[in-house]
Amino acid sequence: MELGMVGLGRMGANMAQRLSQGGHAVTGFDPSAQARQHAADHGITPAGSLAALVSELSAPRAVWLMVPAGTIVDDTLDALLPLLSPGDIVIDGGNSYYKDSIRRGARLEQAGIALVDCGTSGGVWGLTEGYSMMVGGSDAALAQLKPVFETLAPSPTTGWGHVGPVGAGHFTKMVHNGIEYGMMQAYAEGFAILERKADFKLDLHQVARVWQHGSVVRSWLLDIATDALKENPTLAGIAPYVEDSGEGRWTVAESLDLNVSAPVITLSLLERLRSREKDSYADKLLAAMRNGFGGHRITRE
Amino acid sequence: MELGMVGLGRMGANMAQRLSQGGHAVTGFDPSAQARQHAADHGITPAGSLAALVSELSAPRAVWLMVPAGTIVDDTLDALLPLLSPGDIVIDGGNSYYKDSIRRGARLEQAGIALVDCGTSGGVWGLTEGYSMMVGGSDAALAQLKPVFETLAPSPTTGWGHVGPVGAGHFTKMVHNGIEYGMMQAYAEGFAILERKADFKLDLHQVARVWQHGSVVRSWLLDIATDALKENPTLAGIAPYVEDSGEGRWTVAESLDLNVSAPVITLSLLERLRSREKDSYADKLLAAMRNGFGGHRITRE
Amino acid sequence: MELGMVGLGRMGANMAQRLSQGGHAVTGFDPSAQARQHAADHGITPAGSLAALVSELSAPRAVWLMVPAGTIVDDTLDALLPLLSPGDIVIDGGNSYYKDSIRRGARLEQAGIALVDCGTSGGVWGLTEGYSMMVGGSDAALAQLKPVFETLAPSPTTGWGHVGPVGAGHFTKMVHNGIEYGMMQAYAEGFAILERKADFKLDLHQVARVWQHGSVVRSWLLDIATDALKENPTLAGIAPYVEDSGEGRWTVAESLDLNVSAPVITLSLLERLRSREKDSYADKLLAAMRNGFGGHRITRE
Amino acid sequence: MELGMVGLGRMGANMAQRLSQGGHAVTGFDPSAQARQHAADHGITPAGSLAALVSELSAPRAVWLMVPAGTIVDDTLDALLPLLSPGDIVIDGGNSYYKDSIRRGARLEQAGIALVDCGTSGGVWGLTEGYSMMVGGSDAALAQLKPVFETLAPSPTTGWGHVGPVGAGHFTKMVHNGIEYGMMQAYAEGFAILERKADFKLDLHQVARVWQHGSVVRSWLLDIATDALKENPTLAGIAPYVEDSGEGRWTVAESLDLNVSAPVITLSLLERLRSREKDSYADKLLAAMRNGFGGHRITRE
Repeated sequence: MELGMVGLGRMGANMAQRLSQGGHAVTGFDPSAQARQHAADHGITPAGSLAALVSELSAPRAVWLMVPAGTIVDDTLDALLPLLSPGDIVIDGGNSYYKDSIRRGARLEQAGIALVDCGTSGGVWGLTEGYSMMVGGSDAALAQLKPVFETLAPSPTTGWGHVGPVGAGHFTKMVHNGIEYGMMQAYAEGFAILERKADFKLDLHQVARVWQHGSVVRSWLLDIATDALKENPTLAGIAPYVEDSGEGRWTVAESLDLNVSAPVITLSLLERLRSREKDSYADKLLAAMRNGFGGHRITRE
Repeated sequence: MELGMVGLGRMGANMAQRLSQGGHAVTGFDPSAQARQHAADHGITPAGSLAALVSELSAPRAVWLMVPAGTIVDDTLDALLPLLSPGDIVIDGGNSYYKDSIRRGARLEQAGIALVDCGTSGGVWGLTEGYSMMVGGSDAALAQLKPVFETLAPSPTTGWGHVGPVGAGHFTKMVHNGIEYGMMQAYAEGFAILERKADFKLDLHQVARVWQHGSVVRSWLLDIATDALKENPTLAGIAPYVEDSGEGRWTVAESLDLNVSAPVITLSLLERLRSREKDSYADKLLAAMRNGFGGHRITRE
Repeated sequence: MELGMVGLGRMGANMAQRLSQGGHAVTGFDPSAQARQHAADHGITPAGSLAALVSELSAPRAVWLMVPAGTIVDDTLDALLPLLSPGDIVIDGGNSYYKDSIRRGARLEQAGIALVDCGTSGGVWGLTEGYSMMVGGSDAALAQLKPVFETLAPSPTTGWGHVGPVGAGHFTKMVHNGIEYGMMQAYAEGFAILERKADFKLDLHQVARVWQHGSVVRSWLLDIATDALKENPTLAGIAPYVEDSGEGRWTVAESLDLNVSAPVITLSLLERLRSREKDSYADKLLAAMRNGFGGHRITRE
Repeated sequence: MELGMVGLGRMGANMAQRLSQGGHAVTGFDPSAQARQHAADHGITPAGSLAALVSELSAPRAVWLMVPAGTIVDDTLDALLPLLSPGDIVIDGGNSYYKDSIRRGARLEQAGIALVDCGTSGGVWGLTEGYSMMVGGSDAALAQLKPVFETLAPSPTTGWGHVGPVGAGHFTKMVHNGIEYGMMQAYAEGFAILERKADFKLDLHQVARVWQHGSVVRSWLLDIATDALKENPTLAGIAPYVEDSGEGRWTVAESLDLNVSAPVITLSLLERLRSREKDSYADKLLAAMRNGFGGHRITRE
């Protein structure tokens, strides 16, 4: 089917390419001429503007946004909405906050346009392996988009699902990322224990490889860790500095709003914050307090 | 090759069967006549005693112990040792504490017998999918046992490895289980958040299925969770009561001994303890203290 | 000096009474006739309406709000603002969210009225022992209110301070409560460990009493715990159910916004959520997963 | 009464001095001549050897050990036991592990000598303010030592108690220190949040002072923090490096043995470990994994 892809960064370009390879007619827009050229080289019809993109598509149109979460989504909708017609569908495939998606869905509905929020997982591997997609929206919109999801997914019947109304897709993806934080932290702690056990001189890449097959902890994240340990088993030159990208915080905030205790997901986020604190005031105060009551030695910097 | 299997419970029986199917000549002993009969029905030569088992094997012998961790391993070694000869190998495939394995290895070495400690993962699925095995011991012993590991593993070159000296196998398996606790807790928390979000009426089995393919959180544990949610999506009739089997505690204790902060693995264990506290004294004291300073209402039982 | 007290609940009535005993002329309003009568019995001039309260005070007026945090504060300000004159001061002594205080301060400033946000600690004991007050606002407003704070505090020079601009008082009080959560949880866990050590048959009230004098963990919260343990050392009849009143959540949210890892304060909040989960979906899923891969027994309810 | 003090380090010397000031006849031994001289200057009769100390005391003797926990206690008992007589009492006032105290109590009992284990809190402040003492042992031994505890304590009837049999004193002190870890961490996190809130420019020493009087979080540890913040509010020059002295680990291990979930005490210990990890392998692996699946930028060192 016909689809417009707005945003031809790494994720958008890959998804457009996978759709094109799957027989869909994809028109793509990106402000970067280089990104448009790259897309054109991979079977996508480039459009020089949102208006050009919309005019390439026959109504009812399907326009997929793959832009950074936040105000850029709103800005894009501001520009896009006047160009669309009732019956069109906008899919937000980025990592938007689910409450924003609910708000945007209500806004678009007033114009007769359906919003579909698609939480997309798979990263740079999705092009070849397919994407996992948690989709929120109306039955009608989903029915229309089915061929798209069947192509983007690992197979037509796996890796995607209509999980609920608008907002439910991004909500599910948000929690997915919270789980991811917890899993990553579990692996990281385990390998750190193995690494510290100096007398066994464990080959951590080998251990990871052993676990990849037949073990209870095998997973795609373990595959990723195995690759990282293969290239650089001592992780030399990598700073112990871990960013977070927002979904973890949202998951923690949501768990508190729902009164669900989620200590492992929460601590995983805190550990990332901690990794960025190189001169912790809390630790300094602890050291100072220990000195105060016990005369314990303070390590001077 | 020839192998003796001591312990024909679920794990031992399955491993003996996989070896037998792989062309090895397996003699098995278990105190239970029923277990011996079951093994005999699956291609294993039953032995009515440890002595009978040993006499079935040609030296240098390989005897695999698949018995519960703890004193039973020591008791079995007490009975087995007088029956063995220098050059024989004993493999402990159970969940022994790694420090016990080091101690036992030293004991057997004095008798000229090699101990190989094999941390085994895979559970009830290993029979068909193969086991993941982290193996500690001498190069010589490992070289001799190579055909056994190649058959038990998912494939001859995957899922098993010689990770270090005696003790290193069970150490690595212990940490593996610590990671498993953290991963399970991450999933459990994530699904609990999804479940509590009542307005989206999420179908948790469907969400799990979506994540199984293409997502960053796909894993074998997720497959297990998906099966559990398929049969019983509301988890009706299952008590919120989670056992632990020792390796998690050992991992936590080890992390403290090594001065490695492992908050997620640690919290995962604590959450299991917490699940078994139905009348927490700590929570009662908190409620009583709140009442003390603020006149907050105490919920009377 | 003259002061109007809006809200004569337990906290407001006690504060008004302490002020009256300290020689201030306090006029009090509360919608409840019973509360007004109680105040009148303790030296406060009762006012039947906000208008009556304001008319009792000479300009520039000082009106202290001691009402539940949330929309009631805004509603009260809506009603109060038309009655006040430029140069008057409104003090919010409740547990308002500090961002609300900043917003309200800006609103009042447009009318020439100063908002002072006073985080108040001390609970039901403040009447006799004095209150601890963290105060935000302008230097001018604080200078005018000094006699009030000197009377409410344990002594004129202790237990209160001008900590920063409008919002800083409630911010500081919010963090104070986060610390309180952590301290309470630390005591609760410690006593739970002592209680579980059955072979020592420890008298927990006696232990608490020992710690009250000379020990490193002596504190006012320990005094509260000691009282609770004196009345009811087994805490019989108290449900293990712990409420939270909002400031803990705000502190956790703020720590995340500030990228400060605060695991103990955070976990203290999560433990309260946990105490209210009597049928944890997470724990059920863990039990079901354990059964799935290991054939572990599930405890049926 | 007569008492022998073995170990005249800071703690032992102060306790001997407080006893001497309270009218007791204290003989003190320490291998350091300087320590003996210091003690002699403060009213203690110095003894040049354990034998000399024992010969100064009339039977039944009371000998108080104030030596570092661990093998030094056993070594001292080895040397002391041949010098003592049935009916004598040895008090271990240090931070011994409670299981060691149980073991030592059984050993001494065979020689007709009573062990009393006294968990002592108070640090360098105990000399003037008195010590908090949790005492384990027999009724008979405690009755004999009553005058000693009444003098060491803040007052004869406060700050000390006979909490149970041998071992119970050090057990209670161990948990006391676990609570201390949690409280310290709670304060440290709270002040770290306040410190990070740059727009309020909070004076942390002033905030601490406000909290010292009338607030719910007032405590002796807060007094210590207040002193530390007075001298050095930015904590300049203090390394964010926090030692632990063993009791916290023991408390965590004990909580696991007793199946009591104690997340705040546990996390407080982990945070101290974390403060000492300046090049966390876990964090490096997390950064490497993020790069692996998402192409996230790794911060190169």
